[in-house]
Amino acid sequence: MKRTLVDALSSKVGQEVLLKGWIHQIKNFGKFAFLILRDKSGVVQLILEDLEILKELKLEASVEVKGEAKENQKAPGGLEVQVQNIKIVGKTYYDLLPFSINQKDIKASLETQLDHRTISLRRPSKRAVFKVQAEIEEAFRIYLREKGFTEIHTPKIISSGTEGGSELFTVNYFDHRAFLAQSPQFYKQMMVGAGFEAVYEVGHAYRAELHNTWRHLNEYVSLDAEMGFIEDENDLMDLEEGFIRFLFEHLKSNCQKELSILGVKLEKVNEIPRIPLKEVQNILLEEYHKKSPVGNIDAEGEILLSKYIKENYHSDFVFITKYPASKRPMYTMPDDQMDGMTKSFDLIYKGLEITTGGQRIHDYEMLKNNMIRFGVNPEDFEFYLNTFKYGMPPHGGFAIGLERLTMKVLDLDNIREATLFPRDLNRIEP
Amino acid sequence: MKRTLVDALSSKVGQEVLLKGWIHQIKNFGKFAFLILRDKSGVVQLILEDLEILKELKLEASVEVKGEAKENQKAPGGLEVQVQNIKIVGKTYYDLLPFSINQKDIKASLETQLDHRTISLRRPSKRAVFKVQAEIEEAFRIYLREKGFTEIHTPKIISSGTEGGSELFTVNYFDHRAFLAQSPQFYKQMMVGAGFEAVYEVGHAYRAELHNTWRHLNEYVSLDAEMGFIEDENDLMDLEEGFIRFLFEHLKSNCQKELSILGVKLEKVNEIPRIPLKEVQNILLEEYHKKSPVGNIDAEGEILLSKYIKENYHSDFVFITKYPASKRPMYTMPDDQMDGMTKSFDLIYKGLEITTGGQRIHDYEMLKNNMIRFGVNPEDFEFYLNTFKYGMPPHGGFAIGLERLTMKVLDLDNIREATLFPRDLNRIEP
Repeated sequence: MKRTLVDALSSKVGQEVLLKGWIHQIKNFGKFAFLILRDKSGVVQLILEDLEILKELKLEASVEVKGEAKENQKAPGGLEVQVQNIKIVGKTYYDLLPFSINQKDIKASLETQLDHRTISLRRPSKRAVFKVQAEIEEAFRIYLREKGFTEIHTPKIISSGTEGGSELFTVNYFDHRAFLAQSPQFYKQMMVGAGFEAVYEVGHAYRAELHNTWRHLNEYVSLDAEMGFIEDENDLMDLEEGFIRFLFEHLKSNCQKELSILGVKLEKVNEIPRIPLKEVQNILLEEYHKKSPVGNIDAEGEILLSKYIKENYHSDFVFITKYPASKRPMYTMPDDQMDGMTKSFDLIYKGLEITTGGQRIHDYEMLKNNMIRFGVNPEDFEFYLNTFKYGMPPHGGFAIGLERLTMKVLDLDNIREATLFPRDLNRIEP
Repeated sequence: MKRTLVDALSSKVGQEVLLKGWIHQIKNFGKFAFLILRDKSGVVQLILEDLEILKELKLEASVEVKGEAKENQKAPGGLEVQVQNIKIVGKTYYDLLPFSINQKDIKASLETQLDHRTISLRRPSKRAVFKVQAEIEEAFRIYLREKGFTEIHTPKIISSGTEGGSELFTVNYFDHRAFLAQSPQFYKQMMVGAGFEAVYEVGHAYRAELHNTWRHLNEYVSLDAEMGFIEDENDLMDLEEGFIRFLFEHLKSNCQKELSILGVKLEKVNEIPRIPLKEVQNILLEEYHKKSPVGNIDAEGEILLSKYIKENYHSDFVFITKYPASKRPMYTMPDDQMDGMTKSFDLIYKGLEITTGGQRIHDYEMLKNNMIRFGVNPEDFEFYLNTFKYGMPPHGGFAIGLERLTMKVLDLDNIREATLFPRDLNRIEP
């Protein structure tokens, strides 16, 4: 007999069905028992009359159940299954669960939940986060494929860092010292120049940052896009704004169940304002008496800015544009209309930076000179710089932190809740 | 004006168009010149009458061209563009190209091509490989999503190896020694047990193997799948066989142009034979006087077996089943009908192993005992083993090497041709 998923039971009323899943709850009434069975699609009540199996059945055992699907308005979801046969296929070996799975709230710290990741994820609400995350990256792919982008994979073991030498993890690569890539930046640019013109990558990025905050991970998934033959950075912001709009529609269509489990209502994405950094800093100063660091805003500034933008533009998103050259990487294209500034941007979403992007320098001489100006030895990046000798078109791109975007879409408090197995200063297990 | 891609020109005959791309060829006839323009979609002939620009125009410069699209049966593709205006947007800075891009053959060794990856990929035939590769992984996702699998990302920085301690790259993770994951094996099993039931991952895997052959990479992309509530390993082979069939249909529909550039004709996928290892070894001995190593076949054996299967089963694929327990990892499910054997398999495709898979042990005690039997300390893998205390269902999966599959689908000679930036014993650049 073919297995029926719990969320497909309603079409099987009156029929014999085969269910598979975990024992979510046991209510023994002496002459009969209710079991709640949980599979990846949902939970359903089972009516058990032969109680023999209860001697060895514990919560979270995995079972196969044959029985008849019935309507019952009193049962959760209006359906139940009268058990004819139940078999334990995955045994339990514990005295106490590390924390309860079937209670409304989880009474364990986030750290404890992460220590027992495979248990905490058995709660449908914890797992729902990652169904939404999978759809976020799927939306990224669908949107860019439709626009003619090619998916690529670039190396994570590299010979030199992209943004300078700090914050790199070192790898012992045979007899060499190598590094883990902080981003696919150089490689995605090179692939634009190699003729793909427009590329994207969904892959890990590594930052050996000593921050241990709610918004930092040392290993994260980066949604990277890069495209050639652009006019300026507005093409890139148009592209990303289009993605955000597409993403929200995609999630509304594909994650209704998960969004409802998580109590999240997605708002309409309005036009995203694009405001130069200088103006942003002025707003923060005038509205909130908030001083910003030179050439940037800080974490508190991001939160205040989002509040301001929400109130004045009715948008959860805002692009900050025109960062000074001294605060952006050496490959950033200078702005020809604002001295010392660049054609770069960040995207702030609900008080958190989720994207850095911009137009890149595409002229060999200009890039080489900029390297020297930044104190970088062009010879250290010869493999990258060489690409620019052969007709590199105007280009640029952006990167979105997948976990940050997930966290903010779902209003989670800590980025670790949007990461299956977070890696941070204190954690490399499980 | 909106840009027109070369492959969309035929619908613009008689109109003014804007093209963007690279100068693929220059033929100067004195009073006029033919330029061949190349973009990501193809090449087209331009007729240039104002030859002024030729003073500074070199091969591979990137340009923007305005002109009128015309039919001309003598032009390649039956179309040409009469140039009204041409502008260099990406300058060249070279005396000689490292090798020619517009000739029929590339007169450079593979190593030289890899040294100049962004130049070698400008050849449409080299780039076509990666368009096909992108579609292979897209097919993998489409196929598994449709079957209710969830995409996951598991950590690549890990505290202990999955298959034992050798062949691991070490990472300096703050004050700890960590490793790069050889495979997502443990984590994908844990995610099945966490309630996702069926998961897949497309991600990097790392092997510090000292092999430097045509079929080994030290960093590669693994297409991993794992599913719960299976009957036995045949469910997994059914799943993979279904994928292979779907893949070939997908490539025929989505990569016609690339397959034609590469001169590849995809054959129909017939039923894939499933033959126990012992029988395979007998076939090799009887048909080819080929002796095999204990509990496996070697690289020459894989080639001979594929020859035999092609002649006798008309299949490019063959599953080898029932490997001995001593030759498979400690988590492999023993075969209850064949003493000492396991419910495992490899998939051989045109003489090369592209997959290892099998049913895994799901019982806590059995797994723990097997670890001890294999000389593995269960305490070293506590985070993994713990998962099995809480009702782990019967499960299994497989992994496909993306570059190996790409190489064999396209009949390439070396796996590095199917890798944008290969990492091997001698190469960590570009």
